[in-house]
Amino acid sequence: MRFFSDNTGSACPEILAAIQDANTGLVPAYGEDAWTSRLDACCSAFFGTPVRAFAVTTGTAANALSLATVAPPYGAVFCHQEAHINVDECGAPTFFSGGAVLVPLHGEHGRLEPAAFGAALAAHPTYVHSVQPAALSLTQATELGTAYRPAQIRALAELAHERGLKVHLDGARFANALCFLGCHPGDITWRAGVDVMSLGATKNGALAAEAVVFFDTSLVRDFELRRKRAGHLLSKSRYVAAQLLAYLESGVWRRNAERTNRLAQSIGQAAGAALLHPVEANEVFLNLGVGPRQALRAAGFEFYDWGVESAGEARLVVSWDQPEADVPALCAALGRL
Amino acid sequence: MRFFSDNTGSACPEILAAIQDANTGLVPAYGEDAWTSRLDACCSAFFGTPVRAFAVTTGTAANALSLATVAPPYGAVFCHQEAHINVDECGAPTFFSGGAVLVPLHGEHGRLEPAAFGAALAAHPTYVHSVQPAALSLTQATELGTAYRPAQIRALAELAHERGLKVHLDGARFANALCFLGCHPGDITWRAGVDVMSLGATKNGALAAEAVVFFDTSLVRDFELRRKRAGHLLSKSRYVAAQLLAYLESGVWRRNAERTNRLAQSIGQAAGAALLHPVEANEVFLNLGVGPRQALRAAGFEFYDWGVESAGEARLVVSWDQPEADVPALCAALGRL
Amino acid sequence: MRFFSDNTGSACPEILAAIQDANTGLVPAYGEDAWTSRLDACCSAFFGTPVRAFAVTTGTAANALSLATVAPPYGAVFCHQEAHINVDECGAPTFFSGGAVLVPLHGEHGRLEPAAFGAALAAHPTYVHSVQPAALSLTQATELGTAYRPAQIRALAELAHERGLKVHLDGARFANALCFLGCHPGDITWRAGVDVMSLGATKNGALAAEAVVFFDTSLVRDFELRRKRAGHLLSKSRYVAAQLLAYLESGVWRRNAERTNRLAQSIGQAAGAALLHPVEANEVFLNLGVGPRQALRAAGFEFYDWGVESAGEARLVVSWDQPEADVPALCAALGRL
Amino acid sequence: MRFFSDNTGSACPEILAAIQDANTGLVPAYGEDAWTSRLDACCSAFFGTPVRAFAVTTGTAANALSLATVAPPYGAVFCHQEAHINVDECGAPTFFSGGAVLVPLHGEHGRLEPAAFGAALAAHPTYVHSVQPAALSLTQATELGTAYRPAQIRALAELAHERGLKVHLDGARFANALCFLGCHPGDITWRAGVDVMSLGATKNGALAAEAVVFFDTSLVRDFELRRKRAGHLLSKSRYVAAQLLAYLESGVWRRNAERTNRLAQSIGQAAGAALLHPVEANEVFLNLGVGPRQALRAAGFEFYDWGVESAGEARLVVSWDQPEADVPALCAALGRL
Repeated sequence: MRFFSDNTGSACPEILAAIQDANTGLVPAYGEDAWTSRLDACCSAFFGTPVRAFAVTTGTAANALSLATVAPPYGAVFCHQEAHINVDECGAPTFFSGGAVLVPLHGEHGRLEPAAFGAALAAHPTYVHSVQPAALSLTQATELGTAYRPAQIRALAELAHERGLKVHLDGARFANALCFLGCHPGDITWRAGVDVMSLGATKNGALAAEAVVFFDTSLVRDFELRRKRAGHLLSKSRYVAAQLLAYLESGVWRRNAERTNRLAQSIGQAAGAALLHPVEANEVFLNLGVGPRQALRAAGFEFYDWGVESAGEARLVVSWDQPEADVPALCAALGRL
Repeated sequence: MRFFSDNTGSACPEILAAIQDANTGLVPAYGEDAWTSRLDACCSAFFGTPVRAFAVTTGTAANALSLATVAPPYGAVFCHQEAHINVDECGAPTFFSGGAVLVPLHGEHGRLEPAAFGAALAAHPTYVHSVQPAALSLTQATELGTAYRPAQIRALAELAHERGLKVHLDGARFANALCFLGCHPGDITWRAGVDVMSLGATKNGALAAEAVVFFDTSLVRDFELRRKRAGHLLSKSRYVAAQLLAYLESGVWRRNAERTNRLAQSIGQAAGAALLHPVEANEVFLNLGVGPRQALRAAGFEFYDWGVESAGEARLVVSWDQPEADVPALCAALGRL
Repeated sequence: MRFFSDNTGSACPEILAAIQDANTGLVPAYGEDAWTSRLDACCSAFFGTPVRAFAVTTGTAANALSLATVAPPYGAVFCHQEAHINVDECGAPTFFSGGAVLVPLHGEHGRLEPAAFGAALAAHPTYVHSVQPAALSLTQATELGTAYRPAQIRALAELAHERGLKVHLDGARFANALCFLGCHPGDITWRAGVDVMSLGATKNGALAAEAVVFFDTSLVRDFELRRKRAGHLLSKSRYVAAQLLAYLESGVWRRNAERTNRLAQSIGQAAGAALLHPVEANEVFLNLGVGPRQALRAAGFEFYDWGVESAGEARLVVSWDQPEADVPALCAALGRL
Repeated sequence: MRFFSDNTGSACPEILAAIQDANTGLVPAYGEDAWTSRLDACCSAFFGTPVRAFAVTTGTAANALSLATVAPPYGAVFCHQEAHINVDECGAPTFFSGGAVLVPLHGEHGRLEPAAFGAALAAHPTYVHSVQPAALSLTQATELGTAYRPAQIRALAELAHERGLKVHLDGARFANALCFLGCHPGDITWRAGVDVMSLGATKNGALAAEAVVFFDTSLVRDFELRRKRAGHLLSKSRYVAAQLLAYLESGVWRRNAERTNRLAQSIGQAAGAALLHPVEANEVFLNLGVGPRQALRAAGFEFYDWGVESAGEARLVVSWDQPEADVPALCAALGRL
């Protein structure tokens, strides 16, 4: 039973149907098609404010292109030390921005705290010998399966904006956070001060589709040129746009996220004292100890070890198409440890 | 009737079926899946030699990543002045390589000639004040719809190798050239001296799939890291790999290319003296004159103008799913001009 | 007798004296010293308008940093095909800008012509697939020893500005052009539309000192950070600033340029029909033929061959400290060819 | 009395004399001169092994160019968190390498410890999602005025080499460490496993001169091209090379370092319990408390605050030309606090 990652999931039927529906004859390439043309309106409706939205195929591209648009080559981007941009993108934000440096910060349960960010910002030199604070990147849901509350994002974004930084949101698991919080998408994005975000769909049921959504639309020309030169403007753009339209308009985002959140909650409850972080999305982090972790694996459960080798920690992620029986089986196994 | 580009085409049924077939449950992400694992063997069989092959979703990514792997930041890449890498990728090869510069050369009918390339190479300074010759990039079929013969590639590659340059092939329309030439894929790649190529499938019926194929496999670790940091390693890699497998194994590459080549030939014949370049792939270039060109457009045919504004030239491209009736209609219209 | 390059020259006495004068005890580093503080006022007085000026030690740094400040990574910089930035800086402008591409243009006697530049600009695509016109870089005096007239620069700059491009001037031999033209420095810079320039002193008698002068001062913060991260902010900045102050305030720029211009004129006159370009600075280009060129070299004159190997062309450059007797000797030798 | 930095110092008489001596007529440019030609032999003699050495004008250039030569764009460079490359070069190593990321580590008194480095290295992922360990950069003397012992460097370099990393040494204050240790230059460089180093002269009496010294000479062609495209190859190279020759051959390096070490030792002794780190070079770090620090400043001593604002720490640096009377005055003032 696989709990490696939501990246192991397949594409959900609505997404494949949308691709099939878009598969009709000759249409203009490179985003001049009818599907891509509807993306702005679709995302604007979703967020409740006029936005500009652009389709790409990977989260790394979405994040790195967004950040390159807001950070100069000598910019510093503040983020959580566990952030995907910091540990899992092989330097992509630095590559795309032409040199911007990440400033990783600590924060309980994967969330940056305003006090810590404010202190880091205040301590960061502004003379010419140092990279210059340019952006704050938050992850929602976080890399540790927790969700920022609207007021937390607002507080962080305010500190950023006061110093002239732009605010980026890595929303690879945005739907999970949104369903957990039960708020409006605007409450944890533009109303809270987010300037640009990566809106993920792939982990939550799409085949390969992420939207870069600009709440600050002054940046889009620069973005479009950067996207092209990075090879992330697809010739047959309709198929990526169609996935995003289906994802947002069919309610797939909600249905899938609610299910994976619910299953993850069950696992978290079954884990009891082994639970490391509140379960506020589809990820569960456990402190099992090395032996029990090995036992769990031997029992047929696949997952990644987490933290330092000897800590005996584990990460389990529920995919949108996780077989329903996997979860009670896992819960039972956790009970037996 | 649309003759804009083969990028306007849809995805062909075999490709969609392959995506559907791959859509089964939880499988390892980031290329650890069964489809991706078969890619090397599939491409090795196709080319008749052991290769390493990697899937990406755009031709720009395939080209720029390939070139970054063979050219240092201070490298010079020789190419035809009409090459896609030179005119249509917004500087991607320079971006991916960290600075390499293109050296565009002239050549009749879109083909570089050994004499011209040899002269350019000989004239290129090697002192430290100049960028350093690093690679030769050829396009097959060329940007003007012609195909290099095996001996032509061999002659060019030999000149390149003598000076220590690597040879890259942009094969966005490789299938078209291959069908036109009727030779073995190896004859115009590794047997002729090509070190790495972009093997396009998207224009010829895939949804979004290109393979970077290394005949010189010493370069692949560098490539893999560059692909990741460029956001071109897909989490759900199976869907890109599945397209490439279907494309090569089902014979789609041949069926589609033979059809578009045949239709393009008809158009070329109908064009008579207006034909600018031999039709050796699925593109037709015509010198119509400004007035007739306008008349053709008014008759319902869509295509791009070519060359300088006043020249009255036109490019018409046949897509794999070009409605069959479009072509006789076009031929008739050309006859009436 | 060496006519290789004005880079072979030594440092003139006034420059060494200025360095010696600045060699007094402990002073603030990194440009907080009294010499650097005077640089803006000194350059403002020289150009007759308020400017911001920054010292660096090489022309390549001055050019590439200037261009990086005005061109985005996807920018295109138009220049003459013989421009130093195009042929002698190993890709520095591309490196410093993070990817900007040069668009080399032809132009008689090393000068770009408004018609050709306008046509290139008009023909340059503006869609997202292409690098975007960002800057025009002119060289004064040109690489072929000629000087742009004020009206020529004005006409070129107007075309650039109409399309939103910035205008850069590579003034490695600015003093030579200025002395030849006999105009005010403002006439061929800010009054003619130049936004930023590299003001060279090294070739004309400094030890290692070039100023980047901003007429458009909105760009300087970006420049300062780029200079630092490129390692071109000197810790003991006083010594570079002191050279520039001495160069401009002592009249060394004029005395040296007038002498080298005068000597170059003599050589040009002695060359007669062999002269390839008008002598409007300190460089002389001759079409000698391969045999006579060899004879001249055998007679003890050192210089670089120019153009294609077989053309028999030669470039001779007069340095500020060229021994006076070298020139009549050369003229006599030319007469004997 | 100025204790800001050794960058505030002037150029010492032997250096200016060497510049004057090199100021003789026309000599080949760009490193083809007699002074530059002697640099390899001079440095080889100094280090007791055949090396290749290259002159640049700033420490940032020396460090960033060295690191770019050993780290790919997706490389990780391990260093102390206080390292100049990490905090004072505005991202230069990232810029020059095209993206390499620094991994800052903690270490008592500015020194990395083998155990901590080994652990960081072992914990660093090697999969494709992460930047790849490429180099270790040590600073000698460290940023906190301490010196690595030969065995410490050896132990660190061994760990690095085992994993295929290259070892770089930032020797901005190499002479100070060398004089303190009283060992042979080879003992703390090539014999201890250093592959390439930045050998500083500027802080210790030169005008603007640093040597990049390659013990692993296979890297030099790449370096030379990177230096040129970074604008760090000086046209009148003789003047930088002449400084380095004088610095190493006249014994200036030793005389100046011994004096500043001795004066720093006096200050350290006068500081008593306020001393934060052993004084093993020309820097003294004190924990004065906010009030006494202010009192010291009010008494006419200039220096930089260190650490967090409220900590009351100070850094005092002795320059080679520090007036002799400054130090007893400072010691007395420290005694009065």
